[in-house]
Amino acid sequence: MANVMVAPTPEVRRDDDPVIALPLPPAQLDAATKAYFAKCLEKIGFVPNVLQAYGFDLAKLGAFATMYNDLMLAPSALTKLEREMIAVAVSSVNRCYYCLTAHGAAVRQISGDPILGEQMVMNYRAARLDARQRAILDFAVKLTERPHEVEEPDREALRRVGLSDRDIWDVAAVTGFFNMSNRIASATDMRPNPEYHTQGR
Amino acid sequence: MANVMVAPTPEVRRDDDPVIALPLPPAQLDAATKAYFAKCLEKIGFVPNVLQAYGFDLAKLGAFATMYNDLMLAPSALTKLEREMIAVAVSSVNRCYYCLTAHGAAVRQISGDPILGEQMVMNYRAARLDARQRAILDFAVKLTERPHEVEEPDREALRRVGLSDRDIWDVAAVTGFFNMSNRIASATDMRPNPEYHTQGR
Amino acid sequence: MANVMVAPTPEVRRDDDPVIALPLPPAQLDAATKAYFAKCLEKIGFVPNVLQAYGFDLAKLGAFATMYNDLMLAPSALTKLEREMIAVAVSSVNRCYYCLTAHGAAVRQISGDPILGEQMVMNYRAARLDARQRAILDFAVKLTERPHEVEEPDREALRRVGLSDRDIWDVAAVTGFFNMSNRIASATDMRPNPEYHTQGR
Amino acid sequence: MANVMVAPTPEVRRDDDPVIALPLPPAQLDAATKAYFAKCLEKIGFVPNVLQAYGFDLAKLGAFATMYNDLMLAPSALTKLEREMIAVAVSSVNRCYYCLTAHGAAVRQISGDPILGEQMVMNYRAARLDARQRAILDFAVKLTERPHEVEEPDREALRRVGLSDRDIWDVAAVTGFFNMSNRIASATDMRPNPEYHTQGR
Amino acid sequence: MANVMVAPTPEVRRDDDPVIALPLPPAQLDAATKAYFAKCLEKIGFVPNVLQAYGFDLAKLGAFATMYNDLMLAPSALTKLEREMIAVAVSSVNRCYYCLTAHGAAVRQISGDPILGEQMVMNYRAARLDARQRAILDFAVKLTERPHEVEEPDREALRRVGLSDRDIWDVAAVTGFFNMSNRIASATDMRPNPEYHTQGR
Amino acid sequence: MANVMVAPTPEVRRDDDPVIALPLPPAQLDAATKAYFAKCLEKIGFVPNVLQAYGFDLAKLGAFATMYNDLMLAPSALTKLEREMIAVAVSSVNRCYYCLTAHGAAVRQISGDPILGEQMVMNYRAARLDARQRAILDFAVKLTERPHEVEEPDREALRRVGLSDRDIWDVAAVTGFFNMSNRIASATDMRPNPEYHTQGR
Repeated sequence: MANVMVAPTPEVRRDDDPVIALPLPPAQLDAATKAYFAKCLEKIGFVPNVLQAYGFDLAKLGAFATMYNDLMLAPSALTKLEREMIAVAVSSVNRCYYCLTAHGAAVRQISGDPILGEQMVMNYRAARLDARQRAILDFAVKLTERPHEVEEPDREALRRVGLSDRDIWDVAAVTGFFNMSNRIASATDMRPNPEYHTQGR
Repeated sequence: MANVMVAPTPEVRRDDDPVIALPLPPAQLDAATKAYFAKCLEKIGFVPNVLQAYGFDLAKLGAFATMYNDLMLAPSALTKLEREMIAVAVSSVNRCYYCLTAHGAAVRQISGDPILGEQMVMNYRAARLDARQRAILDFAVKLTERPHEVEEPDREALRRVGLSDRDIWDVAAVTGFFNMSNRIASATDMRPNPEYHTQGR
Repeated sequence: MANVMVAPTPEVRRDDDPVIALPLPPAQLDAATKAYFAKCLEKIGFVPNVLQAYGFDLAKLGAFATMYNDLMLAPSALTKLEREMIAVAVSSVNRCYYCLTAHGAAVRQISGDPILGEQMVMNYRAARLDARQRAILDFAVKLTERPHEVEEPDREALRRVGLSDRDIWDVAAVTGFFNMSNRIASATDMRPNPEYHTQGR
Repeated sequence: MANVMVAPTPEVRRDDDPVIALPLPPAQLDAATKAYFAKCLEKIGFVPNVLQAYGFDLAKLGAFATMYNDLMLAPSALTKLEREMIAVAVSSVNRCYYCLTAHGAAVRQISGDPILGEQMVMNYRAARLDARQRAILDFAVKLTERPHEVEEPDREALRRVGLSDRDIWDVAAVTGFFNMSNRIASATDMRPNPEYHTQGR
Repeated sequence: MANVMVAPTPEVRRDDDPVIALPLPPAQLDAATKAYFAKCLEKIGFVPNVLQAYGFDLAKLGAFATMYNDLMLAPSALTKLEREMIAVAVSSVNRCYYCLTAHGAAVRQISGDPILGEQMVMNYRAARLDARQRAILDFAVKLTERPHEVEEPDREALRRVGLSDRDIWDVAAVTGFFNMSNRIASATDMRPNPEYHTQGR
Repeated sequence: MANVMVAPTPEVRRDDDPVIALPLPPAQLDAATKAYFAKCLEKIGFVPNVLQAYGFDLAKLGAFATMYNDLMLAPSALTKLEREMIAVAVSSVNRCYYCLTAHGAAVRQISGDPILGEQMVMNYRAARLDARQRAILDFAVKLTERPHEVEEPDREALRRVGLSDRDIWDVAAVTGFFNMSNRIASATDMRPNPEYHTQGR
């Protein structure tokens, strides 16, 4: 019985499928985009598939990359690790395969702690976090699961562990961003670059 | 007993509170931003509070406005009304006061049908939609509520009512965007401009 | 692609549908009902559709109207505004188009504050409520969402803002009533009188 | 360790508590109410606690009893057993101790099948129902759990097993009614008459 | 209309169905199993259907019975009644017909309090429990509904009412066990022995 | 602001905490258990922490190990990989850190496909599964999330992809088992052996 032949169902897509389930023809890259992709290749060895997915429209790609870079790379009192931890904890609620893979790798790499990356993917409550990290992730996860119930006491909990009002904005903005990108990735069946899986192990 | 005096709880904020619950000092506006705000004033009579909320950091304001304008105003096979209907149906799931108010007004104005705006706020299933509109909103609401369960049959349902793969991207991107902005607005207790309440009635 | 012709799905009903999706022949009105309807016409200019919906059976209409009038209009330490605020906050949880429309209008009219009506429809937590109002709505919404978890501490929270045991009954009874009428309206696709949409704006 | 003495928590109420957790002084009964209570005593041997709970206000008691009697006892194409099965299936979703006890007894008594009563309390899907009963309970439970998602296909499912539009109204009205009374009972910690527990076993 | 003939749907199974919906041929009983079944007959008058369901494979039957007997009958600071109360409260969350029936009977019998058994089935919060019982059931129900949110404060709440760390293990293990057996029973449509329904009434 | 010193909250446990948050003294191992642990050391290089956690009571350890070994290692038409895939998909719903870590490793090792292991942890719907695997995991996840809604059509879906009634039992039993062990692990804050994290990468 274990060897019953089962035909693949029609809707099953194959491992060599394109980056997303929507075969959109790529745009002609302009110089700025080419330079951006070249920089990706130089720094991390590949162009993240999310950027390739957006490659059908340079205006959309630019808007996405600009916002992403501002949130995740620009100066903020949130460390880059904290921002990546938010990304993964939010993506865990939304069970987004692309973002869990890509940003799970980032947590492993930035922290140098592969287990921390796994914990963010599986259940952030299992990690040994300090009070600041825990409060940030509690806020991000509540904002993801029940945004309509976030109120002043939730902001106060962040202030109690030392966050300024500007820092609270940044927590909200990163949380919001991954609630967006999780849904774009899920809606399009976006596949992560295989390189992510082995990074930082 | 009806006249029991009850002191306001400490966390209750007042009606004349600022745009968001985080008192961030506004940045010095540059020429481009001044021009953008002036254009808002000219076209709709006020600067939307979400832009004022972002006014503490021009890079963030720019990234947000660029993405917003691309999604909601740039050419797409989704009509502007359809994009606004997605905005409101998504915000209804997330119960976002700011976005329901601002984009509920947009639905009323663009459609010329005030009741349609109310229905999007209350329960889009109560509206008399054609099959295309219904399929779009069903997709947007599922993607909002259960993104991890969106799969090929959901995309097929959109194709069956005539959407191209590019159109499906646009539905996903608008849905994602409001899942982001709903959370930023809820996290910061963003207050809508009072003008929205009366527009398009 | 935007002009794809899509046939209406068979289950889409039209804007000129009757008051409910169940075409029940109206009963012969008796004198008391005629007087009641005439009083509606005189006082608010129309007969609320919920009464017309019940018009197929005078016993049911009478039972409904008697209970409604007792709960919403009879003396109580809950103000009429508070009762209408409960009605709308409960109907928002249940996303009932009919009740949100009719009682949202009532909140706008009684309070003279159109924005308060919108907030009750969208997310009562966004309104600037005093502690008594907030406690009442917190109780009503918990009782709507998770009735099996309501216990003595929930009643105590109402007593702490000054409600008597009789007042608590009234909160429970109004909350219960709209959990009933929300479901009758949703089950029958009850359409609100169009007049409600513009009242109290 | 099994004998650790634990003081009762303050909020624990005792078995000899009154009918509800709100000690409201009973009204002076009028002749009609006295007759109604006497009839209860004669027919079932006790006055149901829900009526005693309402006894603080004869207008409210009358409105409740009138609606209850119309829904549960007046002529309808829904059998009395079907109406009681709806009552219990709805109360099971809402986990209402009072209504599960009182109406579970009614299912046992009317059906002469004690096991059917248990199944309605525990999980109606475990009962061996005919297609009509199953469709009625599926509708009632969906209307209880997700009223905003009830639409024409749900009504069609009832028509397919032979229900008329009037019958659908009755299913909706009984479902609505117990969504009301479940919440009033839970809000007030209403205790069922002990007699119910042994009826129909 | 009440007499419309409705054919049973094909998937409706009959009251004389076997113990589970999977007709697995019973294994040849070995001496130990025969003795175990004989002991059941002697002590309670029947062989519980769950044991008969496992009878297709003696290794599985043995593993199940060994674990069950250790958890429910071996020495523990949790009383047998407390263990049965956990069984029923957990099964109530999962709405498991088999386990609610069998272990509801056990609560009635061990406690000598038929009403307590009903309350565990319907909503354990309605029972008049001491603080220790309440804390145990609160832990068991949270662990059933939201296992990923159970953390040190939940264990602390059990310690506060006098439980040792070993006792906490036992609460967890019994809760876990019924989350297993609830699912095996639901997956197989396991039918309880009719004797349970009348025990301890 | 990024360097604010935050004292660890009292309930934060450290990385060198024992295997579970309940410091139960280990039992004196008997010969059989010593042999079992020795075999673990020989075959996989360590004694799984779940066995060490059970080490305070040899009867409980034996019962757990016997059931585990029967379900996961004994002959079945479900392949060992399929059983491990069920383990991880179930643990993903329950967000169990221990089981996701230990059985995620098993999926990677048995399949030789590290990405498949990640997909089971993150969202099994993202994996390219054949129809049989997909149906098995759909059943296991529904049985985990909504056991009370599993009925004959769910069993039929397994039969349609070739499962026998015995195979359906095995799917149910493995699903049930991990719903048990997920909860025991979560209730006790069980920590996985660090070796699991790197296995099969």
